Amino acid sequence: MTDVLPTAPSTEPAHPSVVIALDVGGTGIKSALVRPDGSTHHSERHPTGADRGPAAVVETILTVAEGLAGRARADGLAPVAVGIAVPGVVDQAAGVAVWSANLGFRDVPLRDLVSERLGLPSALGHDVRVGGIAEARLGAGRGDRYVLFTAIGTGIAAALTIDGTAFVGAHGAAGELGHIVVRPDGPKCGCGQVGCLEAIASAAAVGRRYTALAGSGSTGDRVSAAEVVRRAAGGEELAVRIWQETVDALADGLLIAQALYDPAVVVVGGGLAEAGDDLLVPLRTALRARLTFHREPRLVPAALGDEAGCLGAALLALDTIGDLETGSAAHIP
Amino acid sequence: MTDVLPTAPSTEPAHPSVVIALDVGGTGIKSALVRPDGSTHHSERHPTGADRGPAAVVETILTVAEGLAGRARADGLAPVAVGIAVPGVVDQAAGVAVWSANLGFRDVPLRDLVSERLGLPSALGHDVRVGGIAEARLGAGRGDRYVLFTAIGTGIAAALTIDGTAFVGAHGAAGELGHIVVRPDGPKCGCGQVGCLEAIASAAAVGRRYTALAGSGSTGDRVSAAEVVRRAAGGEELAVRIWQETVDALADGLLIAQALYDPAVVVVGGGLAEAGDDLLVPLRTALRARLTFHREPRLVPAALGDEAGCLGAALLALDTIGDLETGSAAHIP
Repeated sequence: MTDVLPTAPSTEPAHPSVVIALDVGGTGIKSALVRPDGSTHHSERHPTGADRGPAAVVETILTVAEGLAGRARADGLAPVAVGIAVPGVVDQAAGVAVWSANLGFRDVPLRDLVSERLGLPSALGHDVRVGGIAEARLGAGRGDRYVLFTAIGTGIAAALTIDGTAFVGAHGAAGELGHIVVRPDGPKCGCGQVGCLEAIASAAAVGRRYTALAGSGSTGDRVSAAEVVRRAAGGEELAVRIWQETVDALADGLLIAQALYDPAVVVVGGGLAEAGDDLLVPLRTALRARLTFHREPRLVPAALGDEAGCLGAALLALDTIGDLETGSAAHIP
Repeated sequence: MTDVLPTAPSTEPAHPSVVIALDVGGTGIKSALVRPDGSTHHSERHPTGADRGPAAVVETILTVAEGLAGRARADGLAPVAVGIAVPGVVDQAAGVAVWSANLGFRDVPLRDLVSERLGLPSALGHDVRVGGIAEARLGAGRGDRYVLFTAIGTGIAAALTIDGTAFVGAHGAAGELGHIVVRPDGPKCGCGQVGCLEAIASAAAVGRRYTALAGSGSTGDRVSAAEVVRRAAGGEELAVRIWQETVDALADGLLIAQALYDPAVVVVGGGLAEAGDDLLVPLRTALRARLTFHREPRLVPAALGDEAGCLGAALLALDTIGDLETGSAAHIP
């Protein structure tokens, strides 16, 4: 990993390097120019416009990346690589966005498209997995070798990092914490299984279950998970019950992750993690109550918030050019 | 990894090297002299005598290892390292058998004890994890990068190997497939949890459940899992039902392992795997029926049988001396 700028002795390089990083989500694109030490020089947000179809989304990605390259040069910086994070199934080695429901992507060779358009080395990664890399190297997992990053939002996903590198699995599909069955008699999951953790404990599932059970007294609008947390904190009976069910299901899922992965620390991120101690305190208690021979992981909130994906994309780009970067030091006056 | 003997050009070394390998189980010790290419020169079995207490077991291990060193020299071979595999909790980096119920071990610095007695570099590993290494490099997992080895016997354990190296986790406790909860309303497990896979689908659990349900008609002796498999194949109603419950629980467990680890191949070993196609054929069907977005792993029988642990201990020893071995080539006439 390159973590310092290559410098000639006692002089600053004429054009300090930056990488271009994009975290492409279903509704918005977070993008930034990131220095080799992980600090951000400049950031921008753009709408994804996924309703325009996948070709238009790809064009937007390329245009945003090009715009950032221009911005870097205007600021006297040298853009040296591009990192892109997308949701769904990603073949990182091939640089292909294999499948993404949110973006309408199916086998899009995004890494090569970006490389060709910008003339820069590029890398493509999975949004949660690069978020995990960022939390492990720069965020709440710093200092531990085995870090499990969990993103609990509309869905639930996880990424195990070992020494700051994501564990991807044979088909790039490892870390599907949201789709382990914790309630064999539970609700149907979007994936087709029954009782997946995501079907019970995602922010979407919490809001949906509360709204359904609150029944005719409700206005018909779906109550958000954040509102359920607030009402539970206020002692409302239904909200308390649903929040406890959610915490219990998450503890069951984390116990399984502990048995198979044995992480030192579990970093909890995503929208539901904004509940802070209202989530972490009961979740620690519920997990501790379930441990038998397992060692207890530290359970900590994510430190990088919704910047994790963009920073992770930058780290992926920096990894890609690690050798190149070091080699190029000789050319700097 | 060293996989060829160091040789001077066009000559055989005067004393070809071997490693001393021991797989220490609750009842027996499998031991062997293994060549750097993984082939066995000589093997021996000894009783563990665990009832004599841990100090006596350690002394037996040292004596067996010394005996093998003597045998190697008598055969004109040079013993260059020792590898030991034990069950329980093993700190491989420290070379300490942290805890083993079967052997009565508690914080035994076995690696250093062996090194001191034999004057050779030594390595200590976890029995299932080194078995996984052997199956991944020399057995049924050859050619795949992500291999999940499962040992289904008295208990259930698993080891994921990545490029032939075992994934150990932050506390050396990864791979506890037997202790993931698949039946929240299921039987109590020895670990203290309820509904663990091991409490339903281990050979011990299968025999126990059948015997309990067969009731007064039985002689009072416990029916073995192998006998349950035979009776199920013969169409006996109770045996058929219990075997299907077992297969279903294993499929649920493997589905979770697939979601988190995403292996290319699952190697099924241990006593229950001796059921062969009576286990693998329905297990493939049950797993396939549960897959939604997951990729299907190849499900194959272990190839090395009960030699896997001993061969894995040898591989661990060879890994330890990899550099040394190459360096020593210069000293061979």
